[in-house]
Amino acid sequence: MATAAELQKKVRELEAKLAAALGNAGPVRQKIDVMSSEVVDSNPYSRLMALKRMGIVENYEKIRELSVAVVGVGGVGSVTAEMLTRCGIGKLILFDYDKVELANMNRLFFQPHQAGLSKVDAAASTLQAINPDVAIDAYNYNITTVDNFQKFCDTISTGSLTSSPVDLVLSCVDNFEARMAINTACNELNQRWFESGVSENAVSGHIQFIIPGETACFACAPPLVVASKIDEKTLKREGVCAASLPTTMGIVAGFLVQNTLKHLLNFGNVSHYLGYSALTDFFPAMTLRPNPQCDDSYCRQRQAEFRAKPVVELATEVTEDSSPVHADNEYGISLVDENSPEEETPDLKLVDGVQVAYSIPVDNSTPESSTGGAVAASELSLEELMQQMKSM
Amino acid sequence: MATAAELQKKVRELEAKLAAALGNAGPVRQKIDVMSSEVVDSNPYSRLMALKRMGIVENYEKIRELSVAVVGVGGVGSVTAEMLTRCGIGKLILFDYDKVELANMNRLFFQPHQAGLSKVDAAASTLQAINPDVAIDAYNYNITTVDNFQKFCDTISTGSLTSSPVDLVLSCVDNFEARMAINTACNELNQRWFESGVSENAVSGHIQFIIPGETACFACAPPLVVASKIDEKTLKREGVCAASLPTTMGIVAGFLVQNTLKHLLNFGNVSHYLGYSALTDFFPAMTLRPNPQCDDSYCRQRQAEFRAKPVVELATEVTEDSSPVHADNEYGISLVDENSPEEETPDLKLVDGVQVAYSIPVDNSTPESSTGGAVAASELSLEELMQQMKSM
Repeated sequence: MATAAELQKKVRELEAKLAAALGNAGPVRQKIDVMSSEVVDSNPYSRLMALKRMGIVENYEKIRELSVAVVGVGGVGSVTAEMLTRCGIGKLILFDYDKVELANMNRLFFQPHQAGLSKVDAAASTLQAINPDVAIDAYNYNITTVDNFQKFCDTISTGSLTSSPVDLVLSCVDNFEARMAINTACNELNQRWFESGVSENAVSGHIQFIIPGETACFACAPPLVVASKIDEKTLKREGVCAASLPTTMGIVAGFLVQNTLKHLLNFGNVSHYLGYSALTDFFPAMTLRPNPQCDDSYCRQRQAEFRAKPVVELATEVTEDSSPVHADNEYGISLVDENSPEEETPDLKLVDGVQVAYSIPVDNSTPESSTGGAVAASELSLEELMQQMKSM
Repeated sequence: MATAAELQKKVRELEAKLAAALGNAGPVRQKIDVMSSEVVDSNPYSRLMALKRMGIVENYEKIRELSVAVVGVGGVGSVTAEMLTRCGIGKLILFDYDKVELANMNRLFFQPHQAGLSKVDAAASTLQAINPDVAIDAYNYNITTVDNFQKFCDTISTGSLTSSPVDLVLSCVDNFEARMAINTACNELNQRWFESGVSENAVSGHIQFIIPGETACFACAPPLVVASKIDEKTLKREGVCAASLPTTMGIVAGFLVQNTLKHLLNFGNVSHYLGYSALTDFFPAMTLRPNPQCDDSYCRQRQAEFRAKPVVELATEVTEDSSPVHADNEYGISLVDENSPEEETPDLKLVDGVQVAYSIPVDNSTPESSTGGAVAASELSLEELMQQMKSM
């Protein structure tokens, strides 16, 4: 027979399990009207508001007015959403169309009892229990279909707490098509966003800050080749799936949200591109300028608008963008004169299910510019190209 | 106080409610005898086992035989434990003596409904639900008291799945005293461990791999000053607390577990010291050699044992340790000749509640050595010293 103390412990454990299973049971925390700096155990914001006293953030409370869209609630997106929720973001808008599976349990956030639920519904329920002060909208659809793409554009352009555009879009998707959809929407809407990604072998990742017209968009320098016909998302074929690790995905989510906080709350320096190579703990950083001949007409329009900005502002921006454009990087990508004739693109011999993602347009209308975001393929083997694709 | 019978009834009620709740939410995952690579939605290990096919890890299944102790289950330790659990570690041993509070909700892992529970019990319950294949032991005590320190030593030296010493100890504590306790234990037991830490202003952190005798231990180059009399853990005084962010803590936990996996599963290069400075996305790396005059006698003994190892092995190790010992780093710490006379230590004017952590011993018995881990304080202002203390 168990002792009373043992049983009491068992009761506590079961209560915790039950609360976790229900997602909203137990002595759940109440909504809080105003963020307080008061140092008491019951204040969930004391250690965030301490960032003000420490001289890191001037106005932390501003976070409650901000709205962020997270597209893709998988290994990176779910942790991203949880971090923002715990930081007390004003509003989160989640997009995904996938279901939770036990095969996702090697990454943080989702738990086995949620298997079978839609990712956005499961995430919204958990996040709301963690912080009821955050407004959470969840959309369970694929943004790449024609109808849904329009709904997606409408949502990010009117979805903030004040029905204005969201303050930031975070891409945590895992395929080329969805990234291009977000890119297209953000160029058209002139919406700042972060792209993120983890490699198929689970040991590298990156984040990239895209300011339409100012930094390279996803179409300015996309991957050279992409999967087609096969399920690109995890490159599933006959019992084959991509590897993933909770470490790499947690780190990439951490980089993503940390730079989001720096941008939105105006502290530190926001990285334009930050990579992570786990095998050697290497962290490449760079700034990619937009490609004047980008395929995306809205990107070219934003570039023209940016060039037309007053010189004083331009000077500031140029300083920000002064890191080497041609710097070598671990992915073997180099930036070349975008006026290189298209004929120089090598004859790629692609395996089945893989296609060239785009062709470099020939456009001599802006011959004065000699730098850009076009990717040179001439030095790359097919193996390297495949690796680049996997690294996206 | 409820009687045992009443509690037994309560347990049965809760078990029924839990079963119902879990039944609604979906199937809880059962124990799995053998890790499989099979790509099906119901296999929680498919994307970890894919690391083998990707050529990253030769024998991923080995992780099931490994035991890791996590000391401190707070902002870094809880995420560390969750990552290891999701990776399928054989056994986890958790140590903490704190309770979950709402003030912890700005970091990942714990949820509001767990407020009031002991951190180790709450963590063990959540982790066991996430992965029932992991053996989890939880110890709810402060390792720095005399009795508990001995229990702690006994546990890490016999706590593995085969009653041998654990494979690794991960320090995720937040104060000097606990770090010194872990250091003392690991030097005596010749136990490899990782130290980790996040700064009081929440925007930097680090991990450090300590191999007794081979790399600097925590006493070889400890912080110069530490808090005393006041609650050092969060430096709580009159409504003052340290800042923290889920991003920084998640990233440090990610670095810690990623390097743990690299070490235990033998892939990539393990970082001896990896820092993270969030404001600029700067990642200092270095190797710290042990201090031949370290205060810790077991550290000196391990150094002698290491020097006595066959030359062939030594040569390999020397190559590993060849990064600059005197390299400047962001914390303003420089490494100097450990034979500097003690008199040169400046007269530190310390504020109330802060004391010098150690004194550099004068020992001329090893005059041939001209490098070591002693810390020079002569160039540092008190403000900088305080900052160093806060950065621990």
